[in-house]
Amino acid sequence: MGGDFAPRATVAGALAALADVGAEHSVQLVGQSDVISRELEALLDGEAAGVTDGRARIEIIEAPDVIQMGERPSAAIRSKPKSSMMVGLKLQAEGRSDGFVSAGSTGAQMAASTVVLRLHPGLTRPAIATLFPTSRAPIAVLDSGANVDCSAEELVQFARLGVVYAETVLGRQDPGVGLLSIGEEAEKGNAVVKEAHQLLRAAGLNFIGNVEGRDLPNGACDRGAIDVVICDGFVGNIILKLYEAIGPMISGMLGKALGTDEDSLREALKSLDYNEYGGAPLLGVRGVSIISHGKSSSRAIKNAIRAAIRAVDTGMSDHMGRRLGEAAGASS
Amino acid sequence: MGGDFAPRATVAGALAALADVGAEHSVQLVGQSDVISRELEALLDGEAAGVTDGRARIEIIEAPDVIQMGERPSAAIRSKPKSSMMVGLKLQAEGRSDGFVSAGSTGAQMAASTVVLRLHPGLTRPAIATLFPTSRAPIAVLDSGANVDCSAEELVQFARLGVVYAETVLGRQDPGVGLLSIGEEAEKGNAVVKEAHQLLRAAGLNFIGNVEGRDLPNGACDRGAIDVVICDGFVGNIILKLYEAIGPMISGMLGKALGTDEDSLREALKSLDYNEYGGAPLLGVRGVSIISHGKSSSRAIKNAIRAAIRAVDTGMSDHMGRRLGEAAGASS
Repeated sequence: MGGDFAPRATVAGALAALADVGAEHSVQLVGQSDVISRELEALLDGEAAGVTDGRARIEIIEAPDVIQMGERPSAAIRSKPKSSMMVGLKLQAEGRSDGFVSAGSTGAQMAASTVVLRLHPGLTRPAIATLFPTSRAPIAVLDSGANVDCSAEELVQFARLGVVYAETVLGRQDPGVGLLSIGEEAEKGNAVVKEAHQLLRAAGLNFIGNVEGRDLPNGACDRGAIDVVICDGFVGNIILKLYEAIGPMISGMLGKALGTDEDSLREALKSLDYNEYGGAPLLGVRGVSIISHGKSSSRAIKNAIRAAIRAVDTGMSDHMGRRLGEAAGASS
Repeated sequence: MGGDFAPRATVAGALAALADVGAEHSVQLVGQSDVISRELEALLDGEAAGVTDGRARIEIIEAPDVIQMGERPSAAIRSKPKSSMMVGLKLQAEGRSDGFVSAGSTGAQMAASTVVLRLHPGLTRPAIATLFPTSRAPIAVLDSGANVDCSAEELVQFARLGVVYAETVLGRQDPGVGLLSIGEEAEKGNAVVKEAHQLLRAAGLNFIGNVEGRDLPNGACDRGAIDVVICDGFVGNIILKLYEAIGPMISGMLGKALGTDEDSLREALKSLDYNEYGGAPLLGVRGVSIISHGKSSSRAIKNAIRAAIRAVDTGMSDHMGRRLGEAAGASS
């Protein structure tokens, strides 16, 4: 029920995902079942469904409540236990599903995921990992909006989560971790970042040091490739939204200056489009919770479902729990 | 003497500026006079000087010491009173020049400008204002690197400085001030930003509220055009370097995908090139101190000198002092 183009884009995205992935996968659509049924039937009757066995691989789960974008997350999840958010996540806690995807309120999804799925031991907060396209491979930036004021210890937790995400879901070996700052020297940065730099040096990770804003589009700095970038959610959210908006601005400038048509530009800059990535995992929870952009198209939803499947298939959450346990053991 | 391509780019930039501006303007080149003389003579003898009365409008001022990029700013300005930085700024304090431009160490320039020119009453720190190109007019972002950890009161000071800069140098009427945050609602942001939001509402400025990363490339948000964006220097420096690096990344992607040649792309994206803006004023000091990019080309130096002239001609610093005095009067 969440997202600017729900439920149409969500249902269409689910069908598109089913058409793309193996027949062993199925989707539960959680929300107001009469609304969802209507959308689903219309799409299945149409030409665009793309999947022939849609009815067999889709289950509709009733959840009468809808959390609105303006509601305070903690209050909303308490007062609306029958929201699609809470009902959908409980399916996973009960073992009836493997992953959860939503384009609804990010704050509510974080709060509900933390309450229903719970965090791995030793964590104080979950973090959102967003993929930033670069001239090389995409890099994972976390936290990109879950936590505004973070301690140095929390930044180190994010680094541990990001490394396992990069290894499992992104398939990177010994991922390089950069700490976002304003100079490569250890003494550059604000107070929290300077402290985090020292902690990260002793964290047993492939810490490549501070990275700067200019290193992000390159996906690398002088000291090597960057797979994971660590920052607090205030900085992460600002740069994420900036990054998303620059592609369209530049397309506009080029369209005007060079007369290149919009479609060619969009195709050439496809890797900058968040619809390609579809969703950002909420890392740290025991399970899989993928946060999709509020403006998600059906293509974004499809890609978010694929991201969920990848996280499940690679055992991301279990790996994370194990690695956090090892880190806790090493430091005690 | 400062900057990656000094003294050649600096001297060439000074000559290019003289060719561009009225004959009433002259330039003092401050540094090791033998090195500067050699560069100057070579350029004036060559074809590229662009100005015929160069010798008459250029004065060389001896300053034997050079502050290196790695030096601690406060120590460097104390131990090297005869550096080009200190000598050049003292010319202004002594009334022998009107503005100062450097591509040397930003930290040293800030420290030296604060010590030599001093701050307007009521200020605790100077701030660097950088112009960000947008699909409309450029916006001034401050602070973009002078101050990493800022109080809410300091963010309000930056807003006052930015407004006068936008009015005088950029020629904006009743400039719109946005506070960079992660959502437009007053309660979104980190602790300092939430406090600054409340203070800005009562500051007597055209405060348009919080703006997000995505609003920057548009130069506007739902609530109107943005002229000035306020953030601490940690966030400001990260987004500045990110912004600078994205243009080249996208050019590279388009060059590959569309086969558009590099020169056409560079020309089309010229407004994203920091060499076009040349320099960022250090606001809050009593006088004019323009900070140029360390990688400044002669074109960047030329544009930085033009920026200094504009700041002098519009009486920017005096306006700032008056406005800060009025604000202090209104609140006491």
